[in-house]
Parts: sequence; structure tokens; C-alpha cells
Amino acid sequence: MNFTVTILGSGAALPTFSRNPTSQYIECNNRHILIDCGEGTQMQMRKFGVKFQRISHILISHLHGDHFFGLVGLLSTMHLLGRDQGITIYGPIGLEQIIKSQLEIAGSKLDFSLNFIALDGKTPSLLFEDKLIEIHTFALKHRIPTNGFLIKEKRKEFSLLADVFNAEGLSLTFIPKFKNGEDVIDEKGITHHFEDYTTPPPPTRSYAFCSDTAYLEKVIPFIQNADLLYHEATFTEIHRSRAKATFHSTAIDAANIAKKANVKKLILGHLSARFENGNEHTKEAKTIFENVEVVEDGNVYEII
Amino acid sequence: MNFTVTILGSGAALPTFSRNPTSQYIECNNRHILIDCGEGTQMQMRKFGVKFQRISHILISHLHGDHFFGLVGLLSTMHLLGRDQGITIYGPIGLEQIIKSQLEIAGSKLDFSLNFIALDGKTPSLLFEDKLIEIHTFALKHRIPTNGFLIKEKRKEFSLLADVFNAEGLSLTFIPKFKNGEDVIDEKGITHHFEDYTTPPPPTRSYAFCSDTAYLEKVIPFIQNADLLYHEATFTEIHRSRAKATFHSTAIDAANIAKKANVKKLILGHLSARFENGNEHTKEAKTIFENVEVVEDGNVYEII
Repeated sequence: MNFTVTILGSGAALPTFSRNPTSQYIECNNRHILIDCGEGTQMQMRKFGVKFQRISHILISHLHGDHFFGLVGLLSTMHLLGRDQGITIYGPIGLEQIIKSQLEIAGSKLDFSLNFIALDGKTPSLLFEDKLIEIHTFALKHRIPTNGFLIKEKRKEFSLLADVFNAEGLSLTFIPKFKNGEDVIDEKGITHHFEDYTTPPPPTRSYAFCSDTAYLEKVIPFIQNADLLYHEATFTEIHRSRAKATFHSTAIDAANIAKKANVKKLILGHLSARFENGNEHTKEAKTIFENVEVVEDGNVYEII
Repeated sequence: MNFTVTILGSGAALPTFSRNPTSQYIECNNRHILIDCGEGTQMQMRKFGVKFQRISHILISHLHGDHFFGLVGLLSTMHLLGRDQGITIYGPIGLEQIIKSQLEIAGSKLDFSLNFIALDGKTPSLLFEDKLIEIHTFALKHRIPTNGFLIKEKRKEFSLLADVFNAEGLSLTFIPKFKNGEDVIDEKGITHHFEDYTTPPPPTRSYAFCSDTAYLEKVIPFIQNADLLYHEATFTEIHRSRAKATFHSTAIDAANIAKKANVKKLILGHLSARFENGNEHTKEAKTIFENVEVVEDGNVYEII
């Protein structure tokens, strides 16, 4: 099943001609998730063919405007397009009040429910799970409380080797246990090892989102071995002191985190408006971590 | 001096590929004014070359999101670009609270002052005047309190016919009165008519903005003889019942107002997203008022 990340906005606080403020659309096993929602996100969704009404979860990292000023407009548009399905919004304390007071003052009564889950920006937790995916949050380090996110597949079932299983003449009741990776003891006291009757499931895929944040090794356990890591890289090395002062990262910082967390691929974004392109970011990051690129608005990354 | 209207957004509540939500930039005699500020206005300003820091006055017609959701982002960007000059924002009661609470919760302390002037959407008044322009507001008729705006030049001075004046040997103290269009009685009791010593100033130019509104003849005295009238035309005749139910206008409504107010030119906007173009609006409006066109984002109208 599909697991893709679409970059809707890759810029920092100041939007530029080519980079909208932060937003990403994640499709993971038919679940549809929006991470952050800077101003103009709904126009970007339209531009890049993202269907509004499929989104069931919205994750907001923090309350700097370039990460949420587009949320109230998107919700209003969903309403105008006839949405009746509720939506769950995970975001910092205060977000609910901002959105609801704006809708109220604008006299907009939505025809769908907003289910706000407040995050404190400190406590790691499992935000959501169903039979196919999990969404986790963990703390980043920025000027205000900020959440990182990990979206991962659930571990799939082991595949039964039907021929082997049938040849042994075992009870069908053993099957669910084998598929779940459990050994079974039969009525004669013999232990049947699940590895003998199954092949392992494909590895679970995962996507980690770290923006905005200063260099923070504490995130490594949460994003370890991710297939794809998006890490902010607002600056390059020449601006290291500015990065430090504003609790942002350089491309080298991001690359170091990617390397230490042993992720497969690193993508960089949230570039300061002062950069015309990401060439210098890429060059610097590659000195630490080879499989890296700077994202552009509209890029789609498929996790295979 | 320049008097131009730049259309930054000409769509209605649902943004489309080609129409952003409502916003207009007015330059009038070196005064720089923004009317409405839908989501994405700051990107449109950048796209169409409008300088952010020149804006000194922002007028917000009403608190439907497609007319103000871009304001907080624009103000944040002005701050990030180093603005220190205060800005005056005229808008409905409640706007100040929305903007300030968002900035506060996002931890954004602006380096310039926000001077909010609350409008009740009922009372016509002169909002601002200096030696070159006046800004007036008047009530529109929509589902919530909504303000129309008129931006006009101040009447200029009469021009002195120096030869005639000098030939009469009159006191120089008469000049200011003649320039102001006043007659003067000299020490012999003789009345000197200002028309004999001056030529009239060029006519004052004016621009009227009516969006959003149902058909409303009450606006006519306020916009009478305007050089340019922007009037919303969300719908065409086929949707007349929908226009009525939502307190919007059809192209015919707008044309009737333009005709009765004797304006020179009518421009139509705020087109519902259901229309691919403005051809039907133009066709219908022209049956009533010939000098009409449907605006597109990026159009610039010069008032001569």
C-alpha cells in the first residue's frame, strides 16, 4: 500500500516565490494526514492535487504562524465543500481556542466536528493507532513548545507457509498465533516454532518529521531507522550563530541527526528566505550523510 | 499623481486556481491602502510587486474568512521584514481581538504598533483625511455587519490666472481665498469673483468598493459619480435565488447600482468558484451598464 509524503510548503517564516510556509500531506496505507498548515496550504493542496476531504488527521507542530495560519481557512473550505466527517487535530495548547474563536467571530458554524487533542510539546506519546498505522509524537527544542511526529506502519502479520502447515496436520486454531509470531504447544506437549510455519512480514515503514528544532540528540530514539526523515535546515554553517540564537538547525545538524539515527534518507526543508536554492545545504549535509536532498514545494517522496 | 487599484484576489469564499480570496491594493496620491486581506494576500502582493512596507492603512470589510484570514500572516511578515512604522486597521468589532490573540499565542511581538479602529458596519463616516485623500465608510447589506469604502482625492486648489491677477493690482492676501474658491471684497467694497481670476481644479477622482453585499440602493448617495466602482457579483441571474439567500449580488444587481449611481466604470469580482470565467457576468451586466468588466487577479486599474 502507498506511503507517500507530498511537500506542500518548504519555506520558513517568510514565504518566497517558490516556497510556501510549512505543510506536508502524508498518505500511509490509505490514511490521509496533514502535518502543519501554513498560510496558503489550501491553495497548495489544490495545486498539487491533494483531495481536501480525505484528510482525517491534522498534526500541528507548534504555534509559530508559518506552521498554522492556514488552518482556519482550510477548515472553512472543507465546510463549504460539504464535509460532514469529523476531523482530529493534534496541536499545542491554545490552538483550539484560536481556531474556534476565529470561526465563531466569523459566524462560521462547521457541519463537521473538530476533535482537538492538546499536546504539551514535552511528553512523547502514541497519538493514534488503528490496524494499519500509528502516529507518535515526541518533543523538539524550539523557542516555544514544539512537537515532532513519527508516522509508521503497524507490524504486519507473518505469512503462513500453507504447505508446511497442512503437511503437519495441525489444528487451524494455531494459525492466528503463528501469524502473530507466537509459538504454540500442541496437546502432546510439543512446541511448534512459528518461524517454521511462516515467513516474516515485510519490514514496517516509517516517516519522521522534525521541524522546527535546534540540534537535539534526544530525538534519536524516536526516529531511529526511519525510512525517511524530514529535518528542518533553516540555515547553513555560515549562519550557525543565527541558528543557535533562533533555535533552528543547520544542514550539518540535520545530517548528524540522520546519521546517528541511522535513517535511510534525509530530506531538508524550512529554508530561510535568504537562500535562492538549497545547493549549499545539500553540499554541507553530504559531508556527513550521503542520501540527502533539499525538498521543493510539490515534491512527492514515496517510501517503498 | 497616481490613482490605481490592483486586484490581489477576485474570488469568493472558495479559492480557485486563478482567483485568490478578496484583497485589493490602492495607491492614491502616494497613499497606500489595502482593502481586505484574504488568505494568501501576502503571496499575491509579492507576485504582483506590491511593496509591503508602504501600506499605511488596511480596511477590512467584514469578518468572513475570505476577507481577513490573511491579515495576521501579512502583519507577521511586515514585522519579520523589519517594519517599525505603525499601521492603522479599520475593521469590524472583534477583528482586533482575533489578530492580537493569535499574535500573542504565537509569541509574536511586533516591532510596530497596530492602531485598530472598530467599525460597526452601520454608521457612515469619514475614517481618514489628510491634505490629499479621504477615506469614507458606509454600510453594506450582508449576513454580518459589512463595510463599503470610498477613497477619494481631496478637492484641489483653483489655479490662479497670474496675468489677470497682476493686471488688476490686487493685494497678494487675496490669493489663498481665490485658490480656495472664495470671492473677495476689496477695500472699496467691490466684489471680486474667484472665477474671474482662476481656472477650476481638475475633477477629484474616487474609487468605491462594495463587497460583500446584497442589492442595496442605499449605497448610491455614497458612491455617486465615482470614477471606478468595484461591486461584488458572486452570481449570475440563473442563481438569483441563491444570491438572495446568501445576501450576495448578481451581475445585473451590480450593473443597476452602477447605472443609478452614475459611475464611470464598473468592475465585478467575488465570483463564485462555480464559474470558470466571467463571460456570463459581463454579458448580463452589459444589458444594463456598458462600461463594465470582470476583474482577474493581477489586474491594475488606473483612474485618470
